[in-house]
Amino acid sequence: MAKTETKDTHACTLDKIISLCKRRGFVYQASEIYGGQAGAWDYGPLGVEFKRNIQNEWWHYMTQLHDDVVGLDSAIFQHHTTWKASGHVDHFSDPMVDCIECNARHRADKLIEDFIAANPEINPGKPVDTMTHDEMKAFIDANINCPTCGSKNRKYTAVREFNLMFKTYQGPIADDSHLIYLRPETCQGIFTDFKNIVQSNRMKVPFGVAQVGKSFRNEIIFKNFIFRTCEFEQMEMEYFCKPGTEDETFDRWRKDRWQFYLKYGIPEKQLKWHHHDKLAHYAKDAYDITYNFPIGFEEIEGIHSRTDFDLSQHQTYSKKDMSYIDQEDGNKKYIPYVIETSAGLNRNFLMFLCEAYEEQNVAKEGEPEDYRTVLHLDPRLAPITVAVLPLMKKDGLAEKAKEIQHMLKEDFVTDYDTSGTVGKRYRRQDEVGTPFCVTVDYDTIQEKKEDGSANELFNTVTVRYRDSMEQERVALDDLVFYIQKAIKNYKPVER
Amino acid sequence: MAKTETKDTHACTLDKIISLCKRRGFVYQASEIYGGQAGAWDYGPLGVEFKRNIQNEWWHYMTQLHDDVVGLDSAIFQHHTTWKASGHVDHFSDPMVDCIECNARHRADKLIEDFIAANPEINPGKPVDTMTHDEMKAFIDANINCPTCGSKNRKYTAVREFNLMFKTYQGPIADDSHLIYLRPETCQGIFTDFKNIVQSNRMKVPFGVAQVGKSFRNEIIFKNFIFRTCEFEQMEMEYFCKPGTEDETFDRWRKDRWQFYLKYGIPEKQLKWHHHDKLAHYAKDAYDITYNFPIGFEEIEGIHSRTDFDLSQHQTYSKKDMSYIDQEDGNKKYIPYVIETSAGLNRNFLMFLCEAYEEQNVAKEGEPEDYRTVLHLDPRLAPITVAVLPLMKKDGLAEKAKEIQHMLKEDFVTDYDTSGTVGKRYRRQDEVGTPFCVTVDYDTIQEKKEDGSANELFNTVTVRYRDSMEQERVALDDLVFYIQKAIKNYKPVER
Repeated sequence: MAKTETKDTHACTLDKIISLCKRRGFVYQASEIYGGQAGAWDYGPLGVEFKRNIQNEWWHYMTQLHDDVVGLDSAIFQHHTTWKASGHVDHFSDPMVDCIECNARHRADKLIEDFIAANPEINPGKPVDTMTHDEMKAFIDANINCPTCGSKNRKYTAVREFNLMFKTYQGPIADDSHLIYLRPETCQGIFTDFKNIVQSNRMKVPFGVAQVGKSFRNEIIFKNFIFRTCEFEQMEMEYFCKPGTEDETFDRWRKDRWQFYLKYGIPEKQLKWHHHDKLAHYAKDAYDITYNFPIGFEEIEGIHSRTDFDLSQHQTYSKKDMSYIDQEDGNKKYIPYVIETSAGLNRNFLMFLCEAYEEQNVAKEGEPEDYRTVLHLDPRLAPITVAVLPLMKKDGLAEKAKEIQHMLKEDFVTDYDTSGTVGKRYRRQDEVGTPFCVTVDYDTIQEKKEDGSANELFNTVTVRYRDSMEQERVALDDLVFYIQKAIKNYKPVER
Repeated sequence: MAKTETKDTHACTLDKIISLCKRRGFVYQASEIYGGQAGAWDYGPLGVEFKRNIQNEWWHYMTQLHDDVVGLDSAIFQHHTTWKASGHVDHFSDPMVDCIECNARHRADKLIEDFIAANPEINPGKPVDTMTHDEMKAFIDANINCPTCGSKNRKYTAVREFNLMFKTYQGPIADDSHLIYLRPETCQGIFTDFKNIVQSNRMKVPFGVAQVGKSFRNEIIFKNFIFRTCEFEQMEMEYFCKPGTEDETFDRWRKDRWQFYLKYGIPEKQLKWHHHDKLAHYAKDAYDITYNFPIGFEEIEGIHSRTDFDLSQHQTYSKKDMSYIDQEDGNKKYIPYVIETSAGLNRNFLMFLCEAYEEQNVAKEGEPEDYRTVLHLDPRLAPITVAVLPLMKKDGLAEKAKEIQHMLKEDFVTDYDTSGTVGKRYRRQDEVGTPFCVTVDYDTIQEKKEDGSANELFNTVTVRYRDSMEQERVALDDLVFYIQKAIKNYKPVER
């Protein structure tokens, strides 16, 4: 896929993706009629199918195909001590600074990072993430005009920490004992339920627990469409292993998660590892899988070696024994070490869209350029699997097409479209990534040819492939199985 | 299913369900290690599969099988004016009263209702829902001892309204312009996105929009396990129709949603309509589908005729035109009427569990009683579809069983169990509703009999049915297809 570094006007850009998403019902701004809710997005009829498919494939891959991984769905509301133990109450914050003239709020560290990137000759002399609040404030005062109002006066508030957890209260009294945080990550529910899961499902270490769900972060800045938002969905897995085996387990899951993206059609050259130089105090190692978005390489998934930090913290705060007795190792008692794989569902959504997007010149040699927009989505992810298109509405073709749609819809997400020429309808389906179009024509319904001889194409339809635009004639009786096989045998196009 | 009105010690009770849920990993109390988070529950490894299945079947049924229904996934965070327009800011509240002696909080109306139910001879003279706050207070003062501390002093605070929406703030400033409510219902996102959906997906009225997602209500009292909680999942559909057609549309969806429950094995005698006598001021008609829980008939789904109230309110508050231009009716412009179907996913979960539960005497005539606990779940809903059980661990049987599990797991959620006798393992699977057990024995792996002749049972396994406990011998090559067919042909047991 052509990226922004080229001058290609047919390259994929974030603006084109945003526009396609709105126009075709993938993603709308939340509460758009009220001017929009910052950092929140609604997934429209095609977006919800696409997002569900990504989520279901992740779930299927992680829990159904891995014998040693089970699922969980813990509540968004957990006891507030959970977040004290996890460190979020004390440490989950960003440094922020306000422009006194325009009241715009900035993340102080990002302000400095962006400034250094644009002005490499001016440098604070130490990594931004090691600067104190006073050092940040001094550097900003000395160098950075407010990016919002442009004022050169540089009148800023002090830099202060802002905790990113949303707070609410259970019941009518807003005091600490009724405080609830909206979870900033799904994984803590896996840790607090660790003993319950071991007992109820007789799990033996090593094993993993996978979870998909909403998390909430009170981000000061949202950006890049659905990439960074207040409300988002995580697909996380915590893998519990015996202390001493965490390095090999870490390697296993790094390889495994990388393979997941290849399996669903992301080419290896579009992915890159990012190794964390600076680790959280409890972390032993951390890598991100980054994807080459139109805005550059950005994180889609983190793989973290978390030691026994979380379980130990919950043991300390809850005073409940969180250790595991290893019957296969002489009843040795230990708190397991943890490898975490933490992927963003919304980022996966954006990645698969960007990767699939192509404006393709489909003109024949020597003819004027003719571009179609096509999403080369893996058929398992595409929001619509089969569109049924009658050549005409008349002569019973529409009725036959409806009948065929009804035959297909138990097994596939289908669409039915009669509006405009078949060519136009193909283009419309291409743009939303529908891998198969089934066209119903006169041959489908006519038992005999005009000359009275038997019509060999009676009860057959045309299956048209999105990527190659090739067509095949298929008997109606074989159609369900034919499409199932085509999904299984799908190979991503090389571009 | 035997209900609580019988003295049958083997009847299904809520306590038995709660105990089974915890013991087998369906549902745990959220943050149990911290003493629990009131009104929040975590769904364990089996619970999450079961809940996902119910949700996926609802989604499949509503969107994939209905040509005129599309999906949506709107954000939990919507602009706060959404809830002003919907009426929730002003009207979504319960009357509450506190006991001054023990600080227990009660819903005033429920306190009176419970008292009248227990003391029918004492009556306030008018329906509770028509009483003013002062009338409630007077009746409670005169009649009702605090159910929590039992004090006969009846010292209560005034009755006051408590809004049931959870509030939080976006950004560090807690003022009205940054106020966010956690949505108390999913459906408002469907209304605010109405025009976007029509435009992006070229929808023609009548059509429906289905959505599954979390909602939050700051309930004063939680009760009956997962039946009434602060955080819960709704499966809602709003069907937009032309004014004047709302009654026939209402009837259509009442029939349709009733059929859904029969399709997944709820016997008709366990369901009952509840007609709302008192309607919200905007509602034209409303029915609940109630299910005969061990605690009595309670709502699982509401079907509401909501007129054009919601769209009109959003038009008023947003000043955006919410009307539809009906090209098939001479470009007539109108605000569609709405029929809503609103089901509780967690209540469906509880219903399907209660309905499936049986303690069954499986002793042969004349033998002493021998009870098994079995969940007669529809195979499409069961958390595990196939359990693979090697007769022994030794002689390669475990390896063969693992191989068979790997063959099956692309298509089914599988389990593998080697612990204890096969009979014990069947019972364990029965208790969690696994419809099919595949047993691997010596015949499966032995090409020849002891006498050297060909073993006809080579490469076959035993498939054991949960409900009938009958067994069949099936060739390994046919196993996937055999189980797929058995799922399709499943008939609920008559009890």
